[in-house]
Amino acid sequence: MKGLMQNQPLLLSSLLKHADRFHSGTEIVSRTVEGPIHRYTYGDAAHRTRKLADTLRRHGVAPGDRVATLAWNNFRHFEIEHGVIGLGAVWHAINPRLIPSQISYIVNHAEDRVLCFDSSFLPLVEKLAHEWPTVGLFVLMVDRSSMPANRLPNLVCYEDFISSGDSGFEWPVFDELSASSLFYTSGTTGNPKGVLYSHRSDVLHALTLGGACGFGFVAQDTILPMTPMFHANGAWGFTHAAPMVGAKLVLPGPKLDAASIAELIEGEGVTVTAGVPTLYNNLLKHFEEQGRGAGTLKRIAVAGSAPAPRMIEGFERLGVAVNHVWGMTETSPSGTSPQPSRRTAKLSPPEQIARKTTQGHPLYGVDLKIADEFGNEMPRDSKSAGRLMVRGPWIISGYYRDDKPLLQDGWFDSGDVAVLDDDNTVRLTDRAKDVIKSGGEWISSIDVENLTMGCPGVAEAAVIGVPHPKWEERPLLVVVPLAGATVTAHSITAFLDGKIAKWWMPDDVVFVDALSYGATGKIQKMELRRRFADHYASMARSTA
Amino acid sequence: MKGLMQNQPLLLSSLLKHADRFHSGTEIVSRTVEGPIHRYTYGDAAHRTRKLADTLRRHGVAPGDRVATLAWNNFRHFEIEHGVIGLGAVWHAINPRLIPSQISYIVNHAEDRVLCFDSSFLPLVEKLAHEWPTVGLFVLMVDRSSMPANRLPNLVCYEDFISSGDSGFEWPVFDELSASSLFYTSGTTGNPKGVLYSHRSDVLHALTLGGACGFGFVAQDTILPMTPMFHANGAWGFTHAAPMVGAKLVLPGPKLDAASIAELIEGEGVTVTAGVPTLYNNLLKHFEEQGRGAGTLKRIAVAGSAPAPRMIEGFERLGVAVNHVWGMTETSPSGTSPQPSRRTAKLSPPEQIARKTTQGHPLYGVDLKIADEFGNEMPRDSKSAGRLMVRGPWIISGYYRDDKPLLQDGWFDSGDVAVLDDDNTVRLTDRAKDVIKSGGEWISSIDVENLTMGCPGVAEAAVIGVPHPKWEERPLLVVVPLAGATVTAHSITAFLDGKIAKWWMPDDVVFVDALSYGATGKIQKMELRRRFADHYASMARSTA
Repeated sequence: MKGLMQNQPLLLSSLLKHADRFHSGTEIVSRTVEGPIHRYTYGDAAHRTRKLADTLRRHGVAPGDRVATLAWNNFRHFEIEHGVIGLGAVWHAINPRLIPSQISYIVNHAEDRVLCFDSSFLPLVEKLAHEWPTVGLFVLMVDRSSMPANRLPNLVCYEDFISSGDSGFEWPVFDELSASSLFYTSGTTGNPKGVLYSHRSDVLHALTLGGACGFGFVAQDTILPMTPMFHANGAWGFTHAAPMVGAKLVLPGPKLDAASIAELIEGEGVTVTAGVPTLYNNLLKHFEEQGRGAGTLKRIAVAGSAPAPRMIEGFERLGVAVNHVWGMTETSPSGTSPQPSRRTAKLSPPEQIARKTTQGHPLYGVDLKIADEFGNEMPRDSKSAGRLMVRGPWIISGYYRDDKPLLQDGWFDSGDVAVLDDDNTVRLTDRAKDVIKSGGEWISSIDVENLTMGCPGVAEAAVIGVPHPKWEERPLLVVVPLAGATVTAHSITAFLDGKIAKWWMPDDVVFVDALSYGATGKIQKMELRRRFADHYASMARSTA
Repeated sequence: MKGLMQNQPLLLSSLLKHADRFHSGTEIVSRTVEGPIHRYTYGDAAHRTRKLADTLRRHGVAPGDRVATLAWNNFRHFEIEHGVIGLGAVWHAINPRLIPSQISYIVNHAEDRVLCFDSSFLPLVEKLAHEWPTVGLFVLMVDRSSMPANRLPNLVCYEDFISSGDSGFEWPVFDELSASSLFYTSGTTGNPKGVLYSHRSDVLHALTLGGACGFGFVAQDTILPMTPMFHANGAWGFTHAAPMVGAKLVLPGPKLDAASIAELIEGEGVTVTAGVPTLYNNLLKHFEEQGRGAGTLKRIAVAGSAPAPRMIEGFERLGVAVNHVWGMTETSPSGTSPQPSRRTAKLSPPEQIARKTTQGHPLYGVDLKIADEFGNEMPRDSKSAGRLMVRGPWIISGYYRDDKPLLQDGWFDSGDVAVLDDDNTVRLTDRAKDVIKSGGEWISSIDVENLTMGCPGVAEAAVIGVPHPKWEERPLLVVVPLAGATVTAHSITAFLDGKIAKWWMPDDVVFVDALSYGATGKIQKMELRRRFADHYASMARSTA
């Protein structure tokens, strides 16, 4: 027997329709590539997005066709996201930080038909366009007065392009399982792989992301995603969740330096931001130097890697709650909740800070377990480390145009290694590929890194496993010192002494000027492992 | 092209599975009909619910079969709800406040196969059982030691019934559009009508109800629904949303008096409650008399009718936020959000209080409009009153076993009359059937009632339209005075003077001992209209 409720498909066009209908006067504010601040409303955005969708349709963009972007977070990017998806086509946001050969690979793998891009990327597009046979139309995201001289034969100006579109365009109704957007993840080996979201998975994800067990978005919020729209699911789904609740949206364009972000927070009354720890470290330093507090900012969403305790303390001193969660492109990306378990209420302030360095608590909709190599669930005892595996309606089932079965018994292996505390809090100990195996036992590089980040004089830290003549592998600590600080191998190991198991202590510390990060902000450990592969072997030789 | 995310059906069994897996130690606390407080955990509840489902299945309860309850809010009722629904059968919660002939009507209309009931209802069941040919099994919700002597031939004790069930029972997977539960609404005319929810509509509703634009439930909440589980969707869906987030659940049994509720709030650390204004008026009075504040209570969900300004002020003085929303059985019931629009932030404190007497703001998932008699949308200008119409994935499409088309162009007519402010806040002015039409113009009975409730000495107030020799209808104000207070017709009209349009002023005020309320707590205005039908005609005769 079927229920007798209205059975409407969950379609992403409903987000902007809702904002247009009930929050039409609420603003979207963008810092443009060209410099000036642009401001308009959800009503304006909805009007222009309908014109865009009508124009794309009249240019032959059909359901399922891929329309790519190379762009920063700004109002035209927002329109393209919602216009392409609402039409039933697939938005493919390209990460411009990929190397050119990878960009060409994914444009061709996705078979993009249209590419829209910000003027910053004109030189890149001019250089690569000839490698992209499927792209029949290029749209430069500027107005006519900003159109530069260029060498592309089929380039149109965005404002010209949409000008003849019909603002009375009506969003089509189709199957909620239809593809919505495509994001490639750049593994450290092999070609990038495509994650293809659906309307259903995205609507359920946005309800959860903005919900009370997510980041708790309401209409009175002003949301600034520093996370680029070319990262997982378009700024982590924030550009879905903002119109869903009618929150004001502030899009920072290419300028993610602390002063530019702080200026937007102050000028626009931002209440919540999203980003990775590196950006927040800079922002905190800026707030502390300016000495005027954090203004209207109430909470920050942090993911990608763990915030250091001193960052958490610093923000909370300014009255800003740190919401740290775990996720990845394959999980849409919300994988955990920043909301604490009931047990957490009883923790002391230092224990509360420590809890916020963990990856959060399970969230309704994402079932998770830690498992051994055969997929068997391991104990949730704060000690047993295993593969973090997840399943749920916004978790990937397979990569785009890749026939290899991805799931194990319905579970997706995240590639992260974690322990679950006895209240089920998730604590990552490693990426599976970064695990250090010493004398048959695992050492958590992330734990040692997080602790090292608390040592005076340390700016950045990475721990890698390096081949060792006796122990198979031993940890090596790679440190970037804070500018102007004095820090030694001895001061660091003295700091770590007693905080970690004796056999976890790195056998050596090396100092470098900088660490290199991949396209999504993660430390490139494979490069470090290559560079220091001979470190312990040569130490052994020199002392022999 | 389809997306490549995991496509799992949205099934309600996932709620208790999630709580069991990740919040297994969190408590469910019940006041039992027999008196003592019962406490156990989500882990215990999940274990017993699986045993119940297995037993029902072995007794031949098949997918789609109706299993009814006549019970208060307690742990066994919670198990029956989740067990029956998880099995794919349909939970039919009967409102015991219906008159016996209506109860027999709905048991037979639903064709209930099993009836589970609290011992309070044994006399009622004994009296009516012979009228229910489809009910083959009666289950008394007690343990063996509490089994009373009885005259029912096929009555079993709940604890005996589930004792042989297999706790390893696995929840079946089926179509998310399957029916989940059935609730009858008692109109003032005709037979009660059945609203049949689905798993899909209920999961989407629970995500929204507990979300940040709903009541913002998190694991650290302790939730006490005073709203009976036999009201819309089982205590307004609170028994879905609590396990979804792992909140502690406090079920108050039959005792809804203020002292009993306050005792649970204090003893269990309750942070959020749900109920109608009458219950909250009593609770506020109790808090004020005790003079010890509201303890851990942070916010209250209010619906059914509008809270009076003095109730809102009273709770907010105690640090308790009043979350007033609109909904009905046909809307699952969440129809609006208690979260204010952005404009609201700029209101003065008295304006904030006034806003909370309105019915809330549109919520993603429920599209709404006010419409004229032809279904045409009317202006949202704070003045134009029209039928409040809604549509969305948890809004009814038709009543159970009723072939009459219910929707107009996809919209459900709520039967409420409302205006939308220019920020889209919903303000009910009347039930359509209670509208007063004087000289061709509508008068809002609700506005006048809400104002009258603010007049010193007034306990309850109802405004009805009474036939009038000159104006077709004129408003008559029916007032229950506060015990011990002195209040006169003149003091009330003097109080209202200047606060309402002159032609809205009731032509007379009558005082009564009490107002009568229907099964869902609404004033029975039809009865008042009958009683006072001749009031103005006889006034005219006596002055003629």
